[in-house]
Amino acid sequence: MDEGGGRQTPHRPRAAVVLTGSELVTGVIADANGPWLAHELTALGFEVAQLLVVGDRPDDLAAALRQCADAGCVLVVTSGGLGPTADDLTGEVVARFAGLELEFDEALRERIAEIVARFPRIDHDPDARDAGVRKQALVPRGAVVLDPVGTAPGLVVSPDGGPLVVVLPGPPRELTGMWPTALASGPMKVLLADVPAAAGRQLRYYGLSEAEVAATLRALELERDLSPVEVTTCLRRSELEVDLRPQPGGEDAAEWLAAELAARHAALLISADGTSTDELLARALLGRGWTVATAESCTGGLLAGRLVDRPGSSAYVLGGIVSYSNGAKTSLLGVPAEMIDTYGAVSPEVARAMADGARTALGADVGIGITGVAGPEGGTPAKPVGYVCLCATTASGVVVARDRRIPGNRADVRDRSVDAGMHLLLRAVTG
Amino acid sequence: MDEGGGRQTPHRPRAAVVLTGSELVTGVIADANGPWLAHELTALGFEVAQLLVVGDRPDDLAAALRQCADAGCVLVVTSGGLGPTADDLTGEVVARFAGLELEFDEALRERIAEIVARFPRIDHDPDARDAGVRKQALVPRGAVVLDPVGTAPGLVVSPDGGPLVVVLPGPPRELTGMWPTALASGPMKVLLADVPAAAGRQLRYYGLSEAEVAATLRALELERDLSPVEVTTCLRRSELEVDLRPQPGGEDAAEWLAAELAARHAALLISADGTSTDELLARALLGRGWTVATAESCTGGLLAGRLVDRPGSSAYVLGGIVSYSNGAKTSLLGVPAEMIDTYGAVSPEVARAMADGARTALGADVGIGITGVAGPEGGTPAKPVGYVCLCATTASGVVVARDRRIPGNRADVRDRSVDAGMHLLLRAVTG
Repeated sequence: MDEGGGRQTPHRPRAAVVLTGSELVTGVIADANGPWLAHELTALGFEVAQLLVVGDRPDDLAAALRQCADAGCVLVVTSGGLGPTADDLTGEVVARFAGLELEFDEALRERIAEIVARFPRIDHDPDARDAGVRKQALVPRGAVVLDPVGTAPGLVVSPDGGPLVVVLPGPPRELTGMWPTALASGPMKVLLADVPAAAGRQLRYYGLSEAEVAATLRALELERDLSPVEVTTCLRRSELEVDLRPQPGGEDAAEWLAAELAARHAALLISADGTSTDELLARALLGRGWTVATAESCTGGLLAGRLVDRPGSSAYVLGGIVSYSNGAKTSLLGVPAEMIDTYGAVSPEVARAMADGARTALGADVGIGITGVAGPEGGTPAKPVGYVCLCATTASGVVVARDRRIPGNRADVRDRSVDAGMHLLLRAVTG
Repeated sequence: MDEGGGRQTPHRPRAAVVLTGSELVTGVIADANGPWLAHELTALGFEVAQLLVVGDRPDDLAAALRQCADAGCVLVVTSGGLGPTADDLTGEVVARFAGLELEFDEALRERIAEIVARFPRIDHDPDARDAGVRKQALVPRGAVVLDPVGTAPGLVVSPDGGPLVVVLPGPPRELTGMWPTALASGPMKVLLADVPAAAGRQLRYYGLSEAEVAATLRALELERDLSPVEVTTCLRRSELEVDLRPQPGGEDAAEWLAAELAARHAALLISADGTSTDELLARALLGRGWTVATAESCTGGLLAGRLVDRPGSSAYVLGGIVSYSNGAKTSLLGVPAEMIDTYGAVSPEVARAMADGARTALGADVGIGITGVAGPEGGTPAKPVGYVCLCATTASGVVVARDRRIPGNRADVRDRSVDAGMHLLLRAVTG
């Protein structure tokens, strides 16, 4: 395996992901399979060398497979191009790449025909359908066939001397559904036996900057050699996620580093085991047997939507009120019209009255109010675009409030306000 | 330009996108720049050959650039790796790829230092900061420097005989902000002068299947040669988007095809010019001077959130009620408790009462009610997971209702319910 001269220590076996589809190279849709597979492969202990998106063009797909081999990959996972139509060419191209003949598999044809027959189709062209099914039943000699989750079977192909190729369908549900079967296939099991466990760690912070983590890492490097741990930081949902991935032999260093990072920024730590704020809040509400209600202005229902994202949330979410207009704030949440006149609809006072109003209107234990200027219009010097007031109150008398200017465009302000609301709720419930 | 032997007609100049970042190859986050750039490049008239995601490893980045050149690309756009730290290596690797020396640009260093000084940093390490700024001021000889949008400058590099390389920063806001400057640079203008206009067309349908479009295309191919038009279909937000991209000389065929597709599935057509349902609904509400209010159960506020996505939506969105509990349906929306007992909380009757209740509670012209079983729990044989009832009513007496079983998991059911709600509102307002 040639891993290239520039890398300091050759480490983990490399894998690559190849995603096909014309709609992906024209930007019509964003691919979701790549990040999913990259995460799975990393968790299995591979180093992901590259993710490659190509259109439905056989030469480009063939070139992509060669590139993965050239990058020293022992595994290539492909997604897409397994359908019944002429531009679905992955099976054929992979067979050619592997130097294997395509063979017709009559038992597979019958299985696919059976599945296809279950779908009532408006497309009443039996000849075209049969031709499509026959095409899908062509299998590179010696390949393992993975049972269809939708209509298309997957493949595990072992080229002589090249990387193992796992061929999966493009629809995300079919791909994720077929993945366990692919992992359980004979050739994958043999390959995985030689992959060292990943032993990754993830810490989550709210309110910590990448620069602060970088400074802490520089200080810690003076105490211990951290080169066998790859550290990645990433802001997601306003939280800084710090990913630690040890190379084989670096597990102790990763453990030590995780403990140090957790201790040195303890006040801003959400979790040291990757648990999300949403999960922590759900646990806290269920633990106390509390219910929650929302009152939202600038976030327009997105905080309520985030709360009910979680299956089983009906146990603690009673509902909410989207009071986009001032009239709704008064009539539905009981915010006094004089308060709005005196302090403005976007004010800490109104946010608190909204929180109390939501609690009262829905009979909840915890209420949260969010009001802000999402933009692009409506800003003033005193209350510019991005100025958001949040307040969470509980029936037991806890009040947690925050007002701040959130940077970014309209969508950013709203998303970050929802994030801030989740954190405020967590503090109100656990505080 | 070698476009490979397997493609029938060599057409448009090819471009590629290279995205760098360890967090992208580990699946920590999904890249957003790739689809954005692919869409821009396609709109400019390029054929996007590939999108390549690699980690922060110089050899992998160098190999990616070579792959793009091998694929016959005349343009490569890179994203990421322009920061001040040691693993930000794009400038250096691109210079080596282009065979150009890196030169220190003192004026640029001053400009970056000025910008960096404006950011209050917790990281009080002036030496490290200065070293970072100096690194960012290294420019391949002869390259065009693109002014920083954040702190990192971009580059336009013209290798001798190789593809033009546009080097952009990774943060999406910086990348999209710098793109117009990149397009206006001398070398890009020269390149773009030779790119034929894209002249793409997009049709949107709601309730049409890909199989139906495929059948129509087969029928139309008997009438006219459609090979100079690339047709891509893609389901997004429950709508089937049909993209038509003509090769140079295929513009007439694309026009004809767009007109035929629009006429043959007119009943399900949303728009023949790419206009979205959200935009059509906003226009219709503004046109009539109507206001809207929502009552949501299973979608938990996401429909209200979708409505206020659009800047200026406060002109027609009054607000909404998330009545996740039955008590909230009765107390806030006036849904009679007996109705819930008789028909169940998920029923066409309750959906209609919710729509009326939202209208009344908020004093709106149009109301919508959504109630359904999002799952994974709560399904019954009569009302399985995915069963959703929607109803939109207007003060003028229009009632548009729908109940159906929506396939997919909890998130799918909720997202598709929101899509269905937007369509129902559009029908109620325009019907």
